Amino acid sequence: MSSGINHQVGIKASPQAIYNALTDVGALARWWTTDTRGSGKKVRDTIEFWFADFCQKFDVKELEPARRVVWKSPRGQGCDEWEDTEVSFDLSTDDKQTLIQLRHTGWRASTDFQGHCSMRWAVFLLSFKDVMERGKGRPYPYDLEVHYR
Amino acid sequence: MSSGINHQVGIKASPQAIYNALTDVGALARWWTTDTRGSGKKVRDTIEFWFADFCQKFDVKELEPARRVVWKSPRGQGCDEWEDTEVSFDLSTDDKQTLIQLRHTGWRASTDFQGHCSMRWAVFLLSFKDVMERGKGRPYPYDLEVHYR
Repeated sequence: MSSGINHQVGIKASPQAIYNALTDVGALARWWTTDTRGSGKKVRDTIEFWFADFCQKFDVKELEPARRVVWKSPRGQGCDEWEDTEVSFDLSTDDKQTLIQLRHTGWRASTDFQGHCSMRWAVFLLSFKDVMERGKGRPYPYDLEVHYR
Repeated sequence: MSSGINHQVGIKASPQAIYNALTDVGALARWWTTDTRGSGKKVRDTIEFWFADFCQKFDVKELEPARRVVWKSPRGQGCDEWEDTEVSFDLSTDDKQTLIQLRHTGWRASTDFQGHCSMRWAVFLLSFKDVMERGKGRPYPYDLEVHYR
């Protein structure tokens, strides 16, 4: 099994503000995809991330306020290669910032498509940073293209 | 062992132009770090990437024109966690672009620092894309900060 995707970004915002943004569909819509539905506030809630006609669902698996958010991609509810994968956001601080450690784990293989997703996660984390620091991100469909379709 | 970093980016440029840029220190200086020394043109050449007083060296391990470039980080010649790791750039095309698959493999563990490097590679690949498509990248020290120091 592949160890998956592992990204770290530093954001000038409190861990509580970042945690709140990761559990609120309105806030998620400001950096990942504008069409975000469902709820991310409680364990076992389901969030729906829509990209045009495609929906990627995540079930909320763990929540620790101001510290950790974990989602799990259920079977048949999104991208095939993401089935049963988990996305975790671990928050820590130093004197200058809150650090988000995003890990997307449980991939069956380290495919070319994983590399595409890795770049997309990086771009969306930069979008998240821009929302938190400057009030404006680049969620889908306004995201920076890493691959021409 | 961790599978490491795996990123894919699509660039509107020919594989030969991208290959040339990956083997020329002047071109590397336009997207990774402005202070790039040595040579990347032949197998066993050594490239030096300087970040202020810190130097990361890579030996050129494989070269396949318009297809593949592989570097290896020698022991004691850069970042500890990068010792013996390899960076490969695999080039392929579709009708719209050349795809670069960057893999940075051989990490001993999937650490928080790896997540930092993963974001930095993503930012530098976007810088490389900007150089090839628009003539101007953001090499260190002009790179987009992913972590406040």
